[in-house]
Amino acid sequence: MRRRSRERLPSLPLGYRFAGVSCGLKKRRGKDLALVFSDLPARVAGALTTNVVRAAPVEIAAERLRSGEARAILANSGNANAFTGAEGLRVARRLCAEAARVLGVPENAVLPCSTGPIGAPLPFAPLRKGILRAAARLSPEGFFDALEAMRTTDAFPKWSSRTLRADGRTVVVTGMAKGAGMIAPRMRTVGPGHATMLAFVLTDAALSASSLRSILREALPVSFGAIVVDGDTSTNDTVLLLANGASLPFPLRPRSRDYVRVAEAVTEVMVDLARMIVRDGEGATRVVDVVVRGARTKSDAEKVAEAIARSPLCKTAFFAGDPYVGRFVCAAGYSGARFDPSKLRVFVGPVCVAREGRPCGSARDLARARAIAARAEFVLTLDLGAGSAEARRTTSDLTPAYVRLNSAYRS
Amino acid sequence: MRRRSRERLPSLPLGYRFAGVSCGLKKRRGKDLALVFSDLPARVAGALTTNVVRAAPVEIAAERLRSGEARAILANSGNANAFTGAEGLRVARRLCAEAARVLGVPENAVLPCSTGPIGAPLPFAPLRKGILRAAARLSPEGFFDALEAMRTTDAFPKWSSRTLRADGRTVVVTGMAKGAGMIAPRMRTVGPGHATMLAFVLTDAALSASSLRSILREALPVSFGAIVVDGDTSTNDTVLLLANGASLPFPLRPRSRDYVRVAEAVTEVMVDLARMIVRDGEGATRVVDVVVRGARTKSDAEKVAEAIARSPLCKTAFFAGDPYVGRFVCAAGYSGARFDPSKLRVFVGPVCVAREGRPCGSARDLARARAIAARAEFVLTLDLGAGSAEARRTTSDLTPAYVRLNSAYRS
Repeated sequence: MRRRSRERLPSLPLGYRFAGVSCGLKKRRGKDLALVFSDLPARVAGALTTNVVRAAPVEIAAERLRSGEARAILANSGNANAFTGAEGLRVARRLCAEAARVLGVPENAVLPCSTGPIGAPLPFAPLRKGILRAAARLSPEGFFDALEAMRTTDAFPKWSSRTLRADGRTVVVTGMAKGAGMIAPRMRTVGPGHATMLAFVLTDAALSASSLRSILREALPVSFGAIVVDGDTSTNDTVLLLANGASLPFPLRPRSRDYVRVAEAVTEVMVDLARMIVRDGEGATRVVDVVVRGARTKSDAEKVAEAIARSPLCKTAFFAGDPYVGRFVCAAGYSGARFDPSKLRVFVGPVCVAREGRPCGSARDLARARAIAARAEFVLTLDLGAGSAEARRTTSDLTPAYVRLNSAYRS
Repeated sequence: MRRRSRERLPSLPLGYRFAGVSCGLKKRRGKDLALVFSDLPARVAGALTTNVVRAAPVEIAAERLRSGEARAILANSGNANAFTGAEGLRVARRLCAEAARVLGVPENAVLPCSTGPIGAPLPFAPLRKGILRAAARLSPEGFFDALEAMRTTDAFPKWSSRTLRADGRTVVVTGMAKGAGMIAPRMRTVGPGHATMLAFVLTDAALSASSLRSILREALPVSFGAIVVDGDTSTNDTVLLLANGASLPFPLRPRSRDYVRVAEAVTEVMVDLARMIVRDGEGATRVVDVVVRGARTKSDAEKVAEAIARSPLCKTAFFAGDPYVGRFVCAAGYSGARFDPSKLRVFVGPVCVAREGRPCGSARDLARARAIAARAEFVLTLDLGAGSAEARRTTSDLTPAYVRLNSAYRS
């Protein structure tokens, strides 16, 4: 993710400014501190990791999200500030206070996020200086600098944008994210929010904090909650959804037509970002959508999709481009879901490769299934024949490059 | 696992004979059909996979184990006979019938087991011929041939033996096993019981079927139930425990001194075999015993041990020989167990590397922890500080060789 100075800026929501600077946290230097600022007080909702070992910034965000108001996001890469004890919390608070002072906003309007190695102390002094520099550089043009400053092992910048008309005005929803490894975000929307996966979704529509929470709660399970790279749920996963009303100052009425359109745009942006994270999964060469249908319950459908998305044997078969139905049904079988294997049907793309308790299909069908499984992206469907519940997981393959990357990356 | 013709036979229990022959199921030929025969009617207990997709031989064994009696085990490698529908069941039954006829024993005294690729039809004709040849060659000296015929991706033969004195006689307990990949055996003892992991434990003591079941039920959680290679629970996992009374004809009274000693020997043999499977885990270079103490409940302790034993990030750190405490506490955190991270302590061997919510230890301590984590085997201990429950998982590292092996092994 080199600085793409010539990359065209996406349509950005009004009233947000960005900066990304280097504080020397990363070994090969590079930008590591991102600042996102809303010119107007914004409403905010967030979702935070369910990991009980929560990074210091996650603890702070959990408190501050209760207010439903935010002005700035202070995100650093190169250090997760997770498992850093009381000192980690202290440093995070002092950095937020510094940002608040420089930006002239209340301290609890600054939401911190961190990503990088776990267990290393976060240094105060270089980050404090970085905040001063970042604040001085805030501008809409700083978008890619901020994105670059969020990256760790990401190979490309992840953003997505939607523009729509609502109430006669142009409304923009833009999302920015990072994440490639330690990816199986399972978050809870934080009520009255390491990463490894951070995502900020910004809009210039106006929405109440409770509307934002409800939009986020609905979008989460189909976006970040439906992806798996390695299956490790991070200590730092954070999604923040901000609405500042810069283009549309009156809060959209819940369930109104415009509200629904903005909610859809937010969901689409989150789904886009989540898919980019899988596509950029550490070492990944392939994206597989595991779709489970015909389950007795939603929970059974999720168990099967999740087991396949996490199974090292299914994931190495994905890497091989091999539609190895035996491994898929084995994972379904140990997932904990209840179904009758003789009623199970398995499809690679549209090709049925198993039914009546065994593999099926002509030689031509199998050749087609092989060709589909060798694509960069394909859909693997299991119909359990046990009911009507469905679930989906988007996952990547397991490759020698994943192992090399994560065994070279020393603590 | 070349034939080790000069390898000394272990002490074997009296009254058992073995054979291993080739039927051409494997690509590179080699032995693929094992026969284990008890000269006397034996009592038997078994444990079978909890995967709901059960291989045909597992279905048959589930029925036959109810009787508590057995004379022979018919095991093939090179084909799991799993997910092979009604035809797979029919072939397995006909092969057992053929073995029963040739051996002159009741049909339901033959217990089938299979291991190898899932979803391929098991050919009847070559195996029928193999049974004739195997039956003609049965002898105690056939032990290593039978072991060789059970192997799939195993790099070495797995057996363990204990000899003890009971009631004035010599009693032997010998176990034989195979397994290297698709390893996370989670089995249930079968009442009135693919591999990928098969284990047969034979003794010449006499024990009732219900005694054998109770011994197996107690030994399982500390042996095969406590190991993880890749975390995929197979469709074929089978453990059979046979007692034929050839050296000690009167059933040992439950909980008598001799009973306890035999039960201990069975447990030790099963623990030995389970550990060998992890040591021979596909691509594995290291064995790690993950010990969790101080948990609120046994279930919490198991969740934490299991999460670390399965985590790709912990397993790549094991490969690197890196005591990366951040990844270990992250996995503990998402395991679903309840604990307070500030009370957690982590030890690599005897060296404390984390406490009070953060990494700890002097540079010398860290150097010691690194040296220990780079050993072929080491113990990783997490004390959750939340109670007194404990659990253990023995696991291997995740290496590029695992990925290569399992992406080359095409369906």
